[in-house]
Amino acid sequence: MSAAEVRVGLLGLGTVGTGVVSIISRHQDELRHQVGCPVTVKKVLVRDKEKQRPVDLDESLVTDKIEEVLFDQDINVVIEVMGGVETTREHLLTALRNGKHVVTANKDLMALYGAELLQVAAENGCDLYYEASVAGGIPILRSLSDGLSADRITKMMGIVNGTTNYILTKMTQNGSSYEEVLKVAQELGFAESDPTADVEGLDAARKMAILATLGFSMDVSLDDVTVKGISSVTKTDLDYCDQLGYTMKLIGLAKRDEGRVEVSVEPTLLPKEHPLASVHNEYNAVYVYGEAVGETMFYGPGAGSLPTATAVVSDLVSVMKNMRLGVCGRQVQEPLHARVLKKANEIDSKYFLRLRVLDKAGTFQAVTSLFASHDVSFEKLLQLPIEGEEVAEVIVITHHTTKENYETLYNKLSELEVIESIESCYRVEGGR
Amino acid sequence: MSAAEVRVGLLGLGTVGTGVVSIISRHQDELRHQVGCPVTVKKVLVRDKEKQRPVDLDESLVTDKIEEVLFDQDINVVIEVMGGVETTREHLLTALRNGKHVVTANKDLMALYGAELLQVAAENGCDLYYEASVAGGIPILRSLSDGLSADRITKMMGIVNGTTNYILTKMTQNGSSYEEVLKVAQELGFAESDPTADVEGLDAARKMAILATLGFSMDVSLDDVTVKGISSVTKTDLDYCDQLGYTMKLIGLAKRDEGRVEVSVEPTLLPKEHPLASVHNEYNAVYVYGEAVGETMFYGPGAGSLPTATAVVSDLVSVMKNMRLGVCGRQVQEPLHARVLKKANEIDSKYFLRLRVLDKAGTFQAVTSLFASHDVSFEKLLQLPIEGEEVAEVIVITHHTTKENYETLYNKLSELEVIESIESCYRVEGGR
Repeated sequence: MSAAEVRVGLLGLGTVGTGVVSIISRHQDELRHQVGCPVTVKKVLVRDKEKQRPVDLDESLVTDKIEEVLFDQDINVVIEVMGGVETTREHLLTALRNGKHVVTANKDLMALYGAELLQVAAENGCDLYYEASVAGGIPILRSLSDGLSADRITKMMGIVNGTTNYILTKMTQNGSSYEEVLKVAQELGFAESDPTADVEGLDAARKMAILATLGFSMDVSLDDVTVKGISSVTKTDLDYCDQLGYTMKLIGLAKRDEGRVEVSVEPTLLPKEHPLASVHNEYNAVYVYGEAVGETMFYGPGAGSLPTATAVVSDLVSVMKNMRLGVCGRQVQEPLHARVLKKANEIDSKYFLRLRVLDKAGTFQAVTSLFASHDVSFEKLLQLPIEGEEVAEVIVITHHTTKENYETLYNKLSELEVIESIESCYRVEGGR
Repeated sequence: MSAAEVRVGLLGLGTVGTGVVSIISRHQDELRHQVGCPVTVKKVLVRDKEKQRPVDLDESLVTDKIEEVLFDQDINVVIEVMGGVETTREHLLTALRNGKHVVTANKDLMALYGAELLQVAAENGCDLYYEASVAGGIPILRSLSDGLSADRITKMMGIVNGTTNYILTKMTQNGSSYEEVLKVAQELGFAESDPTADVEGLDAARKMAILATLGFSMDVSLDDVTVKGISSVTKTDLDYCDQLGYTMKLIGLAKRDEGRVEVSVEPTLLPKEHPLASVHNEYNAVYVYGEAVGETMFYGPGAGSLPTATAVVSDLVSVMKNMRLGVCGRQVQEPLHARVLKKANEIDSKYFLRLRVLDKAGTFQAVTSLFASHDVSFEKLLQLPIEGEEVAEVIVITHHTTKENYETLYNKLSELEVIESIESCYRVEGGR
């Protein structure tokens, strides 16, 4: 297939799709300069042809028949920004088998079927790029696969979901409740009307599976990621975080120690001076620790029409450069390492616990001796009476301990008579 | 030249060179996995063969004769980490003309002779990569040329010199003087015994010339960069910055408006909430603004043996991948745009001014009316008496104005009788 002209078939004309059309049109000179040939959008698949759209596009290009894209001999690159998983997978497999290169922004698809799609791409001599699937406008996948290719990545921490970061930021800054902020976020378009996938951490988990697979050269699947969302985070928790010198973020953590990995998404306390702690509102960032390079961080918009479209079209540029050089379908690598997950006794962290205890003699002693008997020591400890009640709150930040140890302790705590309830518990990361 | 084995000739075995040897040895498995062949260091050029070095290296590989590297038929990649400009340029030209690919960490060389070297590389079908020349371990050049390739970059602000960032951080945090901190920095190895190139901004200027050339696709030379260092920054200045909600950083600024560019390096006030304001100590960061992507930032170590060596060896991986695909010497592009520099009346900024004025009736009025007559308005204004003296300090942060306007005003201020002296003046950037 000649690269004398690049003709794009675009699947989807929503937020990102309109951004893609807009960038290809506005930056035509720059694109042509880089790849030496013009690039045009040949067909656009939409669900409803009659719908009004905020983009200047010849009506004859718009179709609601997928075949008109997948089997158009003139189209050499398919850009998929329609979302969905099962049907979309079928479409992209067909496109690849028809020799069309694919650029996708679809994290759900890549987290579930990335390995399969990459393999089919390679078998058919096609490129498959998916930079926009993680952290929108931040070129993090390229940085892992090219910029840090000489290094051995041992840890990644990502704020990879804009909705939850917006909610936690506003809860922290304004002292509002989760429900109040979610409502505002929905009105402003920072949260979906059904926010479950975002607030319960599933969206972030998909991105972490993709990051871990690439960063560790290991086949990490979505099922390997332990997930906890932010819907039960309270104002009180955030107040204590602040008092103790921490900021709470929904952190996707991927960590490797001697060939064993853990991948999780959960609300996590970070010291206020950590680079990720000052990533506010809907912004994303990925903090990467490499054995040789040390600490790096990549920051930018995690979503939005033009930022995400920038990543998509930059992928398109890579495909076009490969087409010109005749080296498509060569970027994929088998994982170097077999996937080995850490067991609970190999996962090591600090923890925050907020306990509601009976405010009477002996309580404090009973609690602390339970910690001691499980070999968990305190980094910070706060006991505060609750006005007008016969209970007090005890807030603990532990020193490092294993997850196994912590879970055993947690179960014992919940059985202890002097403890009314364990109000909340979070992981603590990012100490130097 | 076959890529069945990659044999490296290393020029220089100082801080970065030992890092390169160490990474190639320690990450051999990962490197071989990525490029499909082993990589070995075949020759290492040093000045003094007898010197003890902190790296495990076969003595027979070490030479003090440049010819043994440049004319060795077995060597297919030359890595240059020896520094220097004129002689080094000759060596690399010879290497390229002998068909050897080149990876260099040399910002001085690339800022002065980058265009020539890239052209000779292309003519000889060779690769020339130089990621490590800017911001050490941060893959910023790749992010500009690949990750953000679809976008139109309009602004870059870089903290690209670790020494000056260390000094300004410690001055701000500890309230120490420039001289005190410089002395400590020299003892700790964060500053050279002759720190001129760092503290006077020349090192940063070289990096900004490289960034502007790549980011704007325009041939920006070192002479186009206006430069002011940090050696006259005082504790008093930093105190006022802090009071007014700003942090001072040595900022390399490259800005494009409608095809016209400005590139400068100078101590600059940033709002404390700006992402660059929390880049501390010897860390570097480059903030990039693109028309489509919006705000992004790339953060990491700007120097050091292993971080810089990571960038060098990642470049080596790129070369090796290109060798395997048979597509070396194809990454270079002519600049898309002719270089047009902004005139003083096209450069727009806010400014900080600290004036020492006579503490008597009419002074304030004389100063403010001079500002008004030059159409420069105040964003913030502070007047403080100096105890025991008949003078006061006036601190101004202006609204946006042109550089031309500001300079005219500055000259008039320095002639005004009620002003004893203009103690300091800085650019103010980063407002939203």
